[in-house]
This record gives sequence, C-alpha cells and structure tokens, in this order.
Amino acid sequence: MVRWEPGTRERLQAAALELFLTRGYEQVTAAEIAQAVGVTERTFFRNFSDKREVLFHGQEQFLQVFVDSVSDAPAGASPLELVTAVLHGVASFFPDERRPYSRLRQTVIDQNPALQERELLKLAGVAATVAAAMRARGIGEPGATLAAQSAASVFGIAFTQWIGEGESRSLEDIASDVLRELRSITRSQPGEVVAGPAPTR
Amino acid sequence: MVRWEPGTRERLQAAALELFLTRGYEQVTAAEIAQAVGVTERTFFRNFSDKREVLFHGQEQFLQVFVDSVSDAPAGASPLELVTAVLHGVASFFPDERRPYSRLRQTVIDQNPALQERELLKLAGVAATVAAAMRARGIGEPGATLAAQSAASVFGIAFTQWIGEGESRSLEDIASDVLRELRSITRSQPGEVVAGPAPTR
Repeated sequence: MVRWEPGTRERLQAAALELFLTRGYEQVTAAEIAQAVGVTERTFFRNFSDKREVLFHGQEQFLQVFVDSVSDAPAGASPLELVTAVLHGVASFFPDERRPYSRLRQTVIDQNPALQERELLKLAGVAATVAAAMRARGIGEPGATLAAQSAASVFGIAFTQWIGEGESRSLEDIASDVLRELRSITRSQPGEVVAGPAPTR
Repeated sequence: MVRWEPGTRERLQAAALELFLTRGYEQVTAAEIAQAVGVTERTFFRNFSDKREVLFHGQEQFLQVFVDSVSDAPAGASPLELVTAVLHGVASFFPDERRPYSRLRQTVIDQNPALQERELLKLAGVAATVAAAMRARGIGEPGATLAAQSAASVFGIAFTQWIGEGESRSLEDIASDVLRELRSITRSQPGEVVAGPAPTR
C-alpha cells in the first residue's frame, strides 16, 4: 500500500540539492536521493522522470508565466510594453524567499556543463514561447522574436545578478535597471556606421 | 601509403550533406560518407571527429570573425557601434555564393532536434565570446552581455531570413534592417510602465 506523503516532492528536491552540493551531481543516484528522505526509488520516479528533472521541475509553470504576461497585457501594447510586462510577470515567480534555493540550484548547475547547456536551452525555449505569444497578439516578425529574445536576455542577466552574492534588490528592480541599460545601448548615437534612424512607427 | 588529396574535406562535406538530405541525418554513417567520395573511413576521421562535426566544422573561424570584429573596431566605439561592427564582420563570412550551402545545411538541422540544440548552443557561445571581447575593450556589465546577446540575436534572425526561400538581399543589408527594428522596439514610447528614460551616458 502506498501512503500519500504531503511534501514528498519538495523533500526529495531539498535532499537532492544537498546531495548534489556535497557529493557532486554526477555521483548522486536517484536511489540515494530517495533513501535520504526515507522513500522508495519508485516514489522518486513517481515524482521525477530522472535525476536531472529534480533541477528543472516546474518548467511548464515557468513558461506559462511568460505566456500569461504577454496574453494579459492591455490591448494595443507595444513590443516594449510586452517586454516590460513579461519581466514584471516573471519577477513575481521569483520572490525574495526563493533566492536561497535559486542560489544553491545555480551552484549545482555551474559545476556541470551538461546542466549549463540544459539551462541555456531552457532560456532559448522561453524566447521561442514568448515570440509565439507575441505573434498571437498580432506583433509581426522580426519584431516578435527580437522583443522576445530581448526579454529573455534581460531576464537571464537580471536573474544572474539577483542570485549574486550579497545582492539584496528584488528581481523586478534589477530587471528594470537591465532593461533601461539595453535601451540606453540601442539608442541613437553619433558616429554610427550602419543603422540609420528608426522609421516612424 | 597515404596519398594527399586536395579538397578531400570539402568533398566529404558535400557528400555528407547530400546523404543527410536524401536518407536522413540519423541513418547515415561516417563509413558511408567516406565511401561516397572513395576514401577510407580513417580518412574521414582524419578530417572530422564525428558525423556531426561535418555540419559544425569551422566553428573556431566563425567565432574568430566575431572576436576580430570587436577587437578591430576604432578606439572608443560605443556598444552599439561594436554591435554594428560585429554584424558587418560576420556578414563577410557569409557571402552570397555560400547561401545555397547554408540553405541545405539548415534543412538537415531543422529535421533533427539534437542538431537544433547544437545550433542554439553555438549561438549562445557566440554571445558569450563577443561579451568577453567587449569586456576586454573596457565595456562594463551588464552592457557587454546585453550588446553581445543583441548582436547574436540580430545575427540569428537575419541569418534565418537570409537563407529563406526566394530571399536575395545580402546578409549585411538584412542585418542592418533587423538592427534598426531592434532599435525601433526599444526606444521610448508613451504609456510605458516600468522603465524610465535612460540615464545620460
């Protein structure tokens, strides 16, 4: 008989993270993670398809936050306004109390090239998903992909700052600063070579 | 005795591409590629570490074009001017006579998720390399990473357009248009929510 245990998934995640940090991701097995919280290996695999999934669980909800932020924006929102809405939405997905977990998770990922690749592809998936949501609102190409990749880029940079040692600003504040920097970089400057002034919208 | 054959690498690449397109990337072996041009499997592996390498050969030179474009830009160039220089430099790496090959290569990549991931990671590698080259010029963070990721994003979108069916504009012209669109998207607009005006530089 299988006993339902509240929070089994979260306990498995916490135990996995600790094992990954102390012994190295490669060395830890699913069976050991299960053993650490006193459940069977079968219970582990009812919660996660594999060891890596422990670190990437919740990706659908994560992607949904981006999609909802685009869909819920006011009618007629410009690409820049949609980028802003996306950054606001995803910031609410990472409240400050989540920062310690995000830091530990990143430490594990930084130690393993395959996990780093998985994380990069996750961000590329975010950009593709946001671009599709923007096109669904009638934003044309290449604007939709440019705006979506800019949003993913600003999010990625802001997130890295957010989990930095000693950082205490909220993800929303950091993302706002990084977006401002992007806009500063791309604005007209004297001496430019190729790009002329942007056409009137 | 090994006879030196001029153009063996290029003949292997052409034969591989044709085999990938007609029979599917997964189904083709290195031995079959070698056989198609009348060389031994050993000769194949002197030219390419594996089957995938046929499609990704030359990545070092590709990355070097980006690095050189940043390094060779005039002193005091702004991040936007460096992005422009990068796009100009990489466009020269893809002259129009290369377009048919690039189109066929992309067809193979589009049919295989693992190759698509490899290509995405290649572009992420470009961004990281360009960011490092920008930091080496004294561009601070997050400006260097933002500019580098914008350059990679514009390049990726422009390249996709360049190899599109019926497209005849040069990569340089397309990239210039896409950069202009990025600048149009990120400029100030009425009704914005989060980001204020960029600080004076």
